[in-house]
Amino acid sequence: MYMTSIDKTEEKATPSGVTVRWLLTEEAGAPLFEMRYFEIGKGRSTSGRPHPFEHEVYVVRGKGTIEGDGQTIAIQPGDAILILPGERHKFINTTDDPLGIICLIPKGKENELK
Amino acid sequence: MYMTSIDKTEEKATPSGVTVRWLLTEEAGAPLFEMRYFEIGKGRSTSGRPHPFEHEVYVVRGKGTIEGDGQTIAIQPGDAILILPGERHKFINTTDDPLGIICLIPKGKENELK
Repeated sequence: MYMTSIDKTEEKATPSGVTVRWLLTEEAGAPLFEMRYFEIGKGRSTSGRPHPFEHEVYVVRGKGTIEGDGQTIAIQPGDAILILPGERHKFINTTDDPLGIICLIPKGKENELK
Repeated sequence: MYMTSIDKTEEKATPSGVTVRWLLTEEAGAPLFEMRYFEIGKGRSTSGRPHPFEHEVYVVRGKGTIEGDGQTIAIQPGDAILILPGERHKFINTTDDPLGIICLIPKGKENELK
């Protein structure tokens, strides 16, 4: 068993101006998928680029929207979002408070953000 | 893109007396892994049985402990836990309020709880 928390994990900047904390990783022994916490500050958004693998997202704090494939959807804590391989998706913070999301991907797919 | 929330998802009982809400599933199109929300009420715990596949857990609400392989560890919101294939693990609610966790597994591994 391996345990960590958002508070114990190093916060890293990403090229799109949001931050990421890698919670459960291949390096910690995860066999198939990895868990990260992203925080999107006031006025910020994720890159919107599609990826050739899925994202599974759970909204932890804050409010915002997801833009993708012609839709804009409001999100709030308790929401869960499946983004399929190749789908465009941009998370946008629409408030003054941070928007925090848990985001899981197949292991090894975004090692450039580690 | 597929979206749901804890509030929109049917709550089901499990044999161990906790409840589960399946958020992101193979049926909704998830290619590799599935996301559930478990709620462990006052005085309740999960079964403690090991499984031949990993669990990745994020604590959403409440407080409790995990017992497993000779360790007892306190957990609270913001904690992330990797349980490896075959590891014993029992989540125990130690307060009067519900203990809520997001738990991901490889797809198709716990269809008996759907």
